[in-house]
Amino acid sequence: MADQDGHPDRDEFDLSSILHALSDANRRSVIVQLAEEPDGTEQLCTVFGLPWAPSTRTHHFRVLREAGLVRQRDVGNGRLTSLRRSDLDAVFPGLLDQIVGADRKGRADKS
Amino acid sequence: MADQDGHPDRDEFDLSSILHALSDANRRSVIVQLAEEPDGTEQLCTVFGLPWAPSTRTHHFRVLREAGLVRQRDVGNGRLTSLRRSDLDAVFPGLLDQIVGADRKGRADKS
Repeated sequence: MADQDGHPDRDEFDLSSILHALSDANRRSVIVQLAEEPDGTEQLCTVFGLPWAPSTRTHHFRVLREAGLVRQRDVGNGRLTSLRRSDLDAVFPGLLDQIVGADRKGRADKS
Repeated sequence: MADQDGHPDRDEFDLSSILHALSDANRRSVIVQLAEEPDGTEQLCTVFGLPWAPSTRTHHFRVLREAGLVRQRDVGNGRLTSLRRSDLDAVFPGLLDQIVGADRKGRADKS
C-alpha cells in the first residue's frame, strides 16, 4: 500500500499513471535529469531548472511520486528527490530507458 | 503540416502528445490491439470492444490521430483506423513495442 507520502509499492505501479506523469515535458525533464545521475542520487527540487511556482511544483512532484517514478524525503528546509530506477526496471523492464532515450531524441530532432 | 483530419507529419510528432494519448488505458488498448495485427491492417472503430459512447469515441480517436499514433479514413458509413507503425518506429524507435509490452505485462501482473 502507498505510504503516507503517496509512494506506491511496486505491485501498485500503474502504466497509465506512469505515462500520464511522463506526458508533461517539464515533469519528464525531472526524470531525464535524475536518470543521468548515478543510481541513488538525491537532488533538491530546486535544482531541476523548471519554470514552476512553488505551489505548481508541489503538484507536479506529487504526480511523479504517486506514479512511483520518484521517492522524496524531507531534510531540514528542503525535500530530496531520487529516481526509483530499480523499482521501475523491475515492474516495466526497459520502459524508463526507452522514454528517456525518446525524450533526448525528440529534443535533438527539434533543435 | 498536419492534414485536415489532424494527422501530423513525422516531423511534427511530439513525445508528450504520444505519452498523453497512451496514458488512457482504453486508448492504449486500441493501439495494443492494432499492434497485434499485421502491418497496415485497418479496423472499424467499433471493433475494439471499448465502453465509449459515440461522442466520447470521437474524442478519443482524435487524440490518437493527432498524436500520430493512428491514421483514419472514411469509408461509407464508417471510419477505418490503422496503426502508423512505420512512422512511429522512424521517429521514436522501439517506443511503441516497449509500451505495448509494458501494457501486456501490466495486465498480466494484475490478473
